[in-house]
Amino acid sequence: MNAHHPTLTRLKDILGPKGWTQDPELIAPHLIEWRDRWSGTTPIMVSPAKVAEAQAIMALCNDAGIAVTTQGGNTGLVGAQIPKGEVLISTKRMTAIRTIDPVDDSLIAEAGAVLTRVQDAAREAGKRFPLSLASEGSATIGGLISTNAGGVHVRRHGMMRALVLGLEAVMPDGSLYEGLSSLRKDNTGYDLKQLFIGAEGTLGLVTAASLKLVARPRHMAVAMLALETPEQAVELLHRLEEETGAIAAFEVMNRTGVDLALKNIPNARDPFADKAPWLALVEFESASADLADQAEEALAGALEAGLARDALVAQNESQTKSFWYLREEMSACQKPEGVAAKHDVSVPVSKVPAFLRDADAAANKVAPGCRIVAFGHCSDGNIHYDVLQPSAMSGDAYRAILPAMNEAIHDVAMSYDGSISAEHGIGISRRDEFIRREPPAHLSVMRAIKGVIDPKGIMNPRVLL
Amino acid sequence: MNAHHPTLTRLKDILGPKGWTQDPELIAPHLIEWRDRWSGTTPIMVSPAKVAEAQAIMALCNDAGIAVTTQGGNTGLVGAQIPKGEVLISTKRMTAIRTIDPVDDSLIAEAGAVLTRVQDAAREAGKRFPLSLASEGSATIGGLISTNAGGVHVRRHGMMRALVLGLEAVMPDGSLYEGLSSLRKDNTGYDLKQLFIGAEGTLGLVTAASLKLVARPRHMAVAMLALETPEQAVELLHRLEEETGAIAAFEVMNRTGVDLALKNIPNARDPFADKAPWLALVEFESASADLADQAEEALAGALEAGLARDALVAQNESQTKSFWYLREEMSACQKPEGVAAKHDVSVPVSKVPAFLRDADAAANKVAPGCRIVAFGHCSDGNIHYDVLQPSAMSGDAYRAILPAMNEAIHDVAMSYDGSISAEHGIGISRRDEFIRREPPAHLSVMRAIKGVIDPKGIMNPRVLL
Repeated sequence: MNAHHPTLTRLKDILGPKGWTQDPELIAPHLIEWRDRWSGTTPIMVSPAKVAEAQAIMALCNDAGIAVTTQGGNTGLVGAQIPKGEVLISTKRMTAIRTIDPVDDSLIAEAGAVLTRVQDAAREAGKRFPLSLASEGSATIGGLISTNAGGVHVRRHGMMRALVLGLEAVMPDGSLYEGLSSLRKDNTGYDLKQLFIGAEGTLGLVTAASLKLVARPRHMAVAMLALETPEQAVELLHRLEEETGAIAAFEVMNRTGVDLALKNIPNARDPFADKAPWLALVEFESASADLADQAEEALAGALEAGLARDALVAQNESQTKSFWYLREEMSACQKPEGVAAKHDVSVPVSKVPAFLRDADAAANKVAPGCRIVAFGHCSDGNIHYDVLQPSAMSGDAYRAILPAMNEAIHDVAMSYDGSISAEHGIGISRRDEFIRREPPAHLSVMRAIKGVIDPKGIMNPRVLL
Repeated sequence: MNAHHPTLTRLKDILGPKGWTQDPELIAPHLIEWRDRWSGTTPIMVSPAKVAEAQAIMALCNDAGIAVTTQGGNTGLVGAQIPKGEVLISTKRMTAIRTIDPVDDSLIAEAGAVLTRVQDAAREAGKRFPLSLASEGSATIGGLISTNAGGVHVRRHGMMRALVLGLEAVMPDGSLYEGLSSLRKDNTGYDLKQLFIGAEGTLGLVTAASLKLVARPRHMAVAMLALETPEQAVELLHRLEEETGAIAAFEVMNRTGVDLALKNIPNARDPFADKAPWLALVEFESASADLADQAEEALAGALEAGLARDALVAQNESQTKSFWYLREEMSACQKPEGVAAKHDVSVPVSKVPAFLRDADAAANKVAPGCRIVAFGHCSDGNIHYDVLQPSAMSGDAYRAILPAMNEAIHDVAMSYDGSISAEHGIGISRRDEFIRREPPAHLSVMRAIKGVIDPKGIMNPRVLL
């Protein structure tokens, strides 16, 4: 589209000088994804400050048949937020926390509010917003809703879907879906908000959401365990859950990942000396002052039962941070090692060990000598399974076999009734594969829904469907 | 439709003699609702035993443009399950629990499986299915999904929507939606199962579901509290939640309800002598052996803070049952008292006291001297607000003003951004009001979705939309 298209001129008039830019330098950071996997183009970036402005943008674009791409904190991992010639709508000026009510356990935040700010606001009100993930310092509420974000507390508190009480969204034609309810129960008709959650911006522009808060846990404890096998992890998860009722997170990391963190990440520490094949990070939360004792006791029992080589309960805040730091650097630690084939798969929890075994074999068949970093949310069967180029292979040579690697790993996940995208979404990067693997009957229902809600197909085209 | 319609003959051929009946005596119990509010008619009741039979039924009916009504345990409270001339599809022969996996924390049950059977199967596997409601001995999984059932454990464990990992449903054209996943995380496209949940059978016939299990709580405690005001209930809820982290249910009952139970229900007991205006029933669950002590301590603190007149922790199984019995009879105890205007409203939790105050005033304006039984799920802002005919008024006279009473109570709920159906659904009984009150934009999206999924409009017509 021409940068002087009459619709763009009208957009500028509506938004005023603070609401748009065509300055390449200002736009640039919004056109690249943080892992440098996608870069895009746009004739204009618009940043509505009010819902009415967002409505006006959509109405104008819809009338003119001009496509848009929506962007929150630009932390998405599947390219859905990067425009390829579409008008780029950024929510960065819609950041208000409109209300917070500790008695209703609800908080209404605008789409551009960053997750840590929402967490902080909840904490200041004596409550907690339990969603937590690595990009929480940049990720925004609108993006987290549009991807149905997961993170480390899903088993206990659910994904974003479970934490949205209501939402407000601009429909493709500029009309407003007004559903900012703070009700915990409402069975009046189809639950339309469910459509927007996880739709990757293809059905409307989320402008605000009513979020569910929970009571703050009075006590927390974090432990690291040294394990022999993933089978132990699965058994431990259930044992500790039953014995303590207090599991908030149960994450795993394989040896290769830990070793790369020790090599590439300053201050990363393996708390154990004997290089265990797997580490598990377990977070407990409870209102009970006895939590630390309960956790210690449960861990001692697990050691005695032969379910772990060793276990350490963090003795202070700094040790807690050190345990989490190791886990959180599992992605960054791969960067200096070259090209990685990254996968965000899930399988039923019981199938995690079998998936890992088969995926290791499949990966080594495609690229003998590859280095596998497997880590993530064992408690949800969600493994981030990253396959790094063999040391003896060039990056370019490995890049050429990435499609075969993705196919192989996803085949293994599907063989266990798994998913090729547990929490990151489909976006651009998994679109072709999604369309190939998804049952045609499901796709046609999705397309029919997209068709009636966005008949001109202007919302995040190229994404998902 | 003629009872000898050629499509019916083909249905009989497909299903065989066990799969259908036109015997009025056998059909009769399926045509009346347990509160005798609706009665219906049908040319035939079909009971598929297999998914393929259910598909054949739908394909035949869709081809011939014959409408169907689906029925599970016939415990619905809004008339959605009662046919008015449609073919009646009962799920009573599809009752298998297909699989149960305690490591995945999942269980696959067919639509006709009764809730208590699912609860029992989970328990036998060392797990728990936490949905619990008064009709659990009859209500079926398919019906519970189609109404997005709630009950007493919603605050801790969520409504049915939060407990469905995946589902299988026959689409209106007889094709099968195959989504029986046991994954806890799957972000591949729109989450289509959300559409069927709470759709009251208008989008498809749910035939089976993969349900989420949780760890069994090792310890439980139940307390009854005598309260002065609903404000105390709301404050208590938050205080106990924060102090114990163990609240599983927090239910309230007003004095009129308790008195009617004492009058009309054999063996109902108020554990307190001094006729408190409100009772609260609190259930705690925890893995901690100290639960009873923690609950006692938290309750003692609440008494000291003036948040309750009195509190009793059940000392044994029989006392626990007696506390719950009183709560569960809050609906039945009204029956001998004549005509009742029943409401299943929700408001934000903080607004429960204001709703009760305003609703009492509104009800007394419509029918001076009416008797109000208010009870239910205070922890979700979901109050069952039932207004009984004044003792001095005839049932017929009261019946004539029921519409005005419903309108008045629902107006109050809406004035607090509430819902006219928190957990029972819309069905037939709330349809006109729903369509009048729901924003037209929401209705048109719902109708568009209905239109693309059920273009001939044969699934539960007359219901919801």
